[in-house]
Amino acid sequence: MAPRTLLYAQSGGVTAVINATAAGVITEARTHPAQIGRVLGARQGILGVLGEDLLDTAGLSVPDLAALAGQPGGAFGSCRFDLDAPDDNPAQFERLFEVFAAHDVGYFLYNGGNGSMDTVLKLSAAARARNYPLSCVGVPKTVDNDLVGTDVSPGYGSAAKYLATSMREAGMDLRAMSGRRGRIFVMEVMGRNCGWLAAATVLARQAPDDPPHVLLLPEVPFDADAFLARVQACVERLGYCAITAAEGVRNQDGVLLVEQDEDVRGYVQLGGIGQWLARLVHDRLGYKHHWAVPDYLQRAAGHLVSATDRAQAEAVGQAAVRYALNGRDAVMPAIVREGDAPYRWRIEPAPLGPIANAERRLPTDFIAGAGFDLTGEALRWLRPLIAGEIYPAFFEGLPDYRPPTFVAVGKKLAPYTG
Amino acid sequence: MAPRTLLYAQSGGVTAVINATAAGVITEARTHPAQIGRVLGARQGILGVLGEDLLDTAGLSVPDLAALAGQPGGAFGSCRFDLDAPDDNPAQFERLFEVFAAHDVGYFLYNGGNGSMDTVLKLSAAARARNYPLSCVGVPKTVDNDLVGTDVSPGYGSAAKYLATSMREAGMDLRAMSGRRGRIFVMEVMGRNCGWLAAATVLARQAPDDPPHVLLLPEVPFDADAFLARVQACVERLGYCAITAAEGVRNQDGVLLVEQDEDVRGYVQLGGIGQWLARLVHDRLGYKHHWAVPDYLQRAAGHLVSATDRAQAEAVGQAAVRYALNGRDAVMPAIVREGDAPYRWRIEPAPLGPIANAERRLPTDFIAGAGFDLTGEALRWLRPLIAGEIYPAFFEGLPDYRPPTFVAVGKKLAPYTG
Repeated sequence: MAPRTLLYAQSGGVTAVINATAAGVITEARTHPAQIGRVLGARQGILGVLGEDLLDTAGLSVPDLAALAGQPGGAFGSCRFDLDAPDDNPAQFERLFEVFAAHDVGYFLYNGGNGSMDTVLKLSAAARARNYPLSCVGVPKTVDNDLVGTDVSPGYGSAAKYLATSMREAGMDLRAMSGRRGRIFVMEVMGRNCGWLAAATVLARQAPDDPPHVLLLPEVPFDADAFLARVQACVERLGYCAITAAEGVRNQDGVLLVEQDEDVRGYVQLGGIGQWLARLVHDRLGYKHHWAVPDYLQRAAGHLVSATDRAQAEAVGQAAVRYALNGRDAVMPAIVREGDAPYRWRIEPAPLGPIANAERRLPTDFIAGAGFDLTGEALRWLRPLIAGEIYPAFFEGLPDYRPPTFVAVGKKLAPYTG
Repeated sequence: MAPRTLLYAQSGGVTAVINATAAGVITEARTHPAQIGRVLGARQGILGVLGEDLLDTAGLSVPDLAALAGQPGGAFGSCRFDLDAPDDNPAQFERLFEVFAAHDVGYFLYNGGNGSMDTVLKLSAAARARNYPLSCVGVPKTVDNDLVGTDVSPGYGSAAKYLATSMREAGMDLRAMSGRRGRIFVMEVMGRNCGWLAAATVLARQAPDDPPHVLLLPEVPFDADAFLARVQACVERLGYCAITAAEGVRNQDGVLLVEQDEDVRGYVQLGGIGQWLARLVHDRLGYKHHWAVPDYLQRAAGHLVSATDRAQAEAVGQAAVRYALNGRDAVMPAIVREGDAPYRWRIEPAPLGPIANAERRLPTDFIAGAGFDLTGEALRWLRPLIAGEIYPAFFEGLPDYRPPTFVAVGKKLAPYTG
């Protein structure tokens, strides 16, 4: 069989290491010239496939690929876009396969989270229905770590390392600034449904009384009285209290705290939970308060990636290419933990059926301290994921990221009007 | 004359390198045993002097001092406390000099910003009025960079490096996530009256169209229409727009945007300016929006300090000790710039009279682009301040800061009841 095109795309929220996965894909693909001809990327995920907006990676030198592997963001652009059900929108699928056929795409690798895995499943089924020869492979990526079927998702470890470092550092600042009146600090982290990122900040502790002192997880319904009592006890003991709050903390009725109609003062409050909690504590207990919202910073910190996470990100990219070449379809390279200390892991294929659109929340046996803390088991699971440092090159005091320049692939089809 | 005690204290908001100054003070002081006996620190600034809450640094080994120099926060604790006017509260000054006398303090070094320099001036005058032999020296520190009399203040360069890195990284994330609808990102940075930290994010640009695209400074009254027009033009050109906003941006009447009574929707809005601006853009232009508030993270990032800033922080600590020994009083070691490229600087004493309580804002000739950007001159001034990297030791994936353990000095006086 003549070599066919491998098409790679990025989807969903990007991470500090998704480009390491891209570099892994491209590097591995180049070692199989008998089976893989061109290695293309779609701009902005599946939208780039629909729009026939394709980028050629052939111009990237080996140093370019090394630079790509170390930079945050998503070099191909990402999207948040779900395919329709094939029966609802057959034209959409028709278009995708016109683009695949026009560029002889034989391997499609989609790098994303649980929604992206559903896209892979749909494309796989549609290819079979059409008798179009295509290997569809998902490549895991999410800072939220909510993918089932893998011990951990690439992207999570680096965000975890950044947030734990930030909590340790901000906690030292908080401690220095705390006086007689008491002071609290809230760090609001990503995680609308899952507390994995919030949990990672507990790694910041070097001693039992170190920050964070209170953890608020989406998995645990918010109890204001219990929360305030815990904060007060902490401030009375130490003079300060550091709180990590997942953005998706909900009340007893399952409503996001920040989407409740009225806050304690009766105002409509559309801010983040960090501010909401800081005001609650200030109003009820009178403490001084600060709050931080790292937002994109937590998933883009290329200057502080986990070497472990980055190695796994590259490895899943490489494995996905091999799976595609071996004719595996509708699978994802999953990370399997073989041991905690020393940490050992391997990669094996996981079928996407149970993974697509499923969500993995913090297990109950990771949560302790009346819902405000973690178990030792959780910390044993977390610790190896943030291990190791890889620094970017710096130029004039800043990380010298050099986004690649891609050559756009010539379009062969009429513009997409769907 | 017998050796006398040197007393050092930290005041105001702490920085990523204030402990490097402390290490510089202690290290230098130990080289002058004929003049300096004990080297003590006051806990929580001048409050620790009033409370006779003193810490002995004698137990710190050379490795302890090296560790101290690399850690964020303020190892002695800080405070926000202004002394009263001596005539209003003579008992307060009486107490301070009782504590000085009880511990034979002959040298007092106060590490802070413009308010702290006023404390130094007051103590200096009070010592002369009492004929108490005391050298009072200020040691500059502020992430806000609003101290006059020095080219730059230690603490600023590291926060600037962190914020410029964060803008570059978050900007790459923003770019990857931007689709047809347009997307903006606002990073809210410290600076209630001065735009120095906001300005530093402009260093993130590697090309003219790189983030940040719009800069909002406290020095420039906010013009919503001009701001929105600039954001819209940027999104229409690039698909996205990154905005840096100082927390202290004010409207044409000098009122903080976030303290205006009503926002565009008519709600009372007590959040930060990042959220306020993101909502304004979303409401008026319909773009998707994200906002970040690094808060303490920007001044506590020991994992990303500027080597230049840290060298200056240590140098001002060392110089302050030498000034005190030479009988200089009511001065501060100031950083004098000798050249931009290559960057050269020296330290010389500056009298505190014009420095105390004065505020240095961004000069007009640093501001360009209708108030939304900087001049080339500003960038030439900024660039050397963030140069150079010094990484902390890491353990299990995180910076291994080891806060020193101090021995409390035995109290000789009755508790302070003021």
